Amino acid sequence: MTRPAVPPSRMPAVPPRILLGPGPSAAHPRVLQAMMSHVIGYLDPDFLLIIDEVSDLLRRVFRTDENLTLALSGTGSAGMEAGLSSLLEPGDTVVICASGFFSDRMIDMAERLDADVVALRSEWGRPFPAEMLADELKRRESVKLVTAIHAETSTGISQPMDDLARLAREHDALFMVDAVTSLGGNEVAVDRWGADYCYSATQKCLACPPGLSPVALSPRAHEAVKSRKNKPSSWYLDLALIANYWGFDHVYHHTAPVSLILALREGLRIVLEEGLEQRFERHRRNAAALRAGLEALGLDLVSPEGYRLDQITPFWVPEGVDEAAVRQILLREHGIEVGRGLGQFAGRVIRVGLMGESSRPEYVLALMAALEKILPRLGYETAHGAGVSAASGALSDSAT
Amino acid sequence: MTRPAVPPSRMPAVPPRILLGPGPSAAHPRVLQAMMSHVIGYLDPDFLLIIDEVSDLLRRVFRTDENLTLALSGTGSAGMEAGLSSLLEPGDTVVICASGFFSDRMIDMAERLDADVVALRSEWGRPFPAEMLADELKRRESVKLVTAIHAETSTGISQPMDDLARLAREHDALFMVDAVTSLGGNEVAVDRWGADYCYSATQKCLACPPGLSPVALSPRAHEAVKSRKNKPSSWYLDLALIANYWGFDHVYHHTAPVSLILALREGLRIVLEEGLEQRFERHRRNAAALRAGLEALGLDLVSPEGYRLDQITPFWVPEGVDEAAVRQILLREHGIEVGRGLGQFAGRVIRVGLMGESSRPEYVLALMAALEKILPRLGYETAHGAGVSAASGALSDSAT
Repeated sequence: MTRPAVPPSRMPAVPPRILLGPGPSAAHPRVLQAMMSHVIGYLDPDFLLIIDEVSDLLRRVFRTDENLTLALSGTGSAGMEAGLSSLLEPGDTVVICASGFFSDRMIDMAERLDADVVALRSEWGRPFPAEMLADELKRRESVKLVTAIHAETSTGISQPMDDLARLAREHDALFMVDAVTSLGGNEVAVDRWGADYCYSATQKCLACPPGLSPVALSPRAHEAVKSRKNKPSSWYLDLALIANYWGFDHVYHHTAPVSLILALREGLRIVLEEGLEQRFERHRRNAAALRAGLEALGLDLVSPEGYRLDQITPFWVPEGVDEAAVRQILLREHGIEVGRGLGQFAGRVIRVGLMGESSRPEYVLALMAALEKILPRLGYETAHGAGVSAASGALSDSAT
Repeated sequence: MTRPAVPPSRMPAVPPRILLGPGPSAAHPRVLQAMMSHVIGYLDPDFLLIIDEVSDLLRRVFRTDENLTLALSGTGSAGMEAGLSSLLEPGDTVVICASGFFSDRMIDMAERLDADVVALRSEWGRPFPAEMLADELKRRESVKLVTAIHAETSTGISQPMDDLARLAREHDALFMVDAVTSLGGNEVAVDRWGADYCYSATQKCLACPPGLSPVALSPRAHEAVKSRKNKPSSWYLDLALIANYWGFDHVYHHTAPVSLILALREGLRIVLEEGLEQRFERHRRNAAALRAGLEALGLDLVSPEGYRLDQITPFWVPEGVDEAAVRQILLREHGIEVGRGLGQFAGRVIRVGLMGESSRPEYVLALMAALEKILPRLGYETAHGAGVSAASGALSDSAT
């Protein structure tokens, strides 16, 4: 077989995209620029200052004073697995509040760890009912860990956390929170919740590229990790070892992904420059406009009022409309990426993400204009201009 | 506690460094530029073309035609753990050829997986003796996996692989190779060895930032992963699931770190543009000059002739010289990072890396000049100019 020494690049450049899927969202230009820095050693004293700075910035964004904050060298799912595999020993009971695709992933992971997995499954597209957790905990002697998902990307639900957190605490269980889609986009209140382990990802509301999982670890959880009877099955995601690198001692564990950490530092600084409250408000405003537009097109939203996530808005694809065709035309003719449905929502739901740098009024309007052109071609009639007009009106209202 | 909304950056920029440690090495400017690209979705059809291209480029660099090649979303240690946790089931026998710090890491990981771990420990700083593996395999009925390290970063040994590979094959065991420090710097011959799982990292000889672990998986190993009795303990590093994303079907597993993958694509193209043989020769030439310089300063190299790694050259710190002081002055006064000793070599050895973009004649000379200034200050006399002169001579010789 003769092959050229260097095969021709199949595509010279990355095509332009408006990223309105479930992530990655657009990275901030300053974040991209931060990655252009030359590389520095992960044990260089000057880099360790950066590690400390990132840790401090994360504490602010996670709203915690006492937790150890750090960024794992993997995506959000690595954050999920690090928590489960470091906190659970074989036979430990974990109660998983499950009402979406990502809770199913958690169940899969916990089962692989030989934990005693109690999966509380509630209806997708509805908030998880706190009574269900209360009832279960009443029946159980000893629960090591309760887990919940703050912002379920598959269903667009913003889960109220206070009750779940309180129940876990009352039962003396550790409380683990998935904040992959919420951190930097709506309030993640680690200290107020008393969350023991909270993990997120960089490519959603933090406007960084994917590859890191920022986490917050409470002193209690850290103690639990250090006092395990046996080492966790994963060395790479062993929070005790990783905490030694990010904590005071800065002990070598693995080669930290320095460029992504520089990117994260810049991303966190931008989040705080905008201001957390202002940033949450921006996400709220643009999501409200999106919802107004979708509803004006006669489309039904999956999640009920009061529990709608500002970061992800799933809507039901109208009967008879080819869901894949909608996404494909959006991508190919309008350069807009939206997300497909996952699990039981596959083929029935389209998910629109407005996260971080992707949460912008002009993107909402661009999507509305595109949907107004596409949907009639696929057999679904809409009132001409209704979506753009409603979204635009909502944006003007909120601006005054 | 009142804290400013955005704390002042502790350090405005990343200080300049000549990276001559065990990694990360310098990233190529084109690689850094590739990361500046806006982000694209990991299921975008145009990104999937890039995934295919990276896979193809990796096949060339790993020198394999049939293996599935991909990049894991973690550092080299993630590659190590993915192999062990995906290939080993509890109770399976793994024979680990161990003669350095990173084999000890492998042993730690394999023990966490409840494998039957046979650690064959040989002397550090010497190649692992194939007879030792032969003797062990003779005594064993069934061995699932044999592992070896091609380029042991802690000792500077270039391990001959052909005999170990042959023994594993004769015993019908899978053969796993750590090529973290060698890939792109000296020959990694996956097909010739018949390696079933070979993993590397991006921040060494591929001149990319850290964060990805390129791997090659043989059809036989892929089959073993797919036909496990139980799922591996790690979901994040489950090679069966990851292969589904990188393979033909491109099934969603986790959010791929798109910016790092774009960087890797550029890095691999640069490797092939230079040419693998030419690149190996460059690493050889600069390492020879480094060794000539160090020996002219009267310093003793750790690894014996014939087994010296071109990527990492460890030398014994002379009696009475403060090892940490050498490294600190190199960093603070000369902007040069070198590596400390690990494990039983801690405090006794300094390791000089010449990998990827860091393997350059001018860096060898800069290091020699710096050592000639520093060592006498720390009580070790050297003949004035001897290191620079010897290194320089070696470079001229090799140029003619």
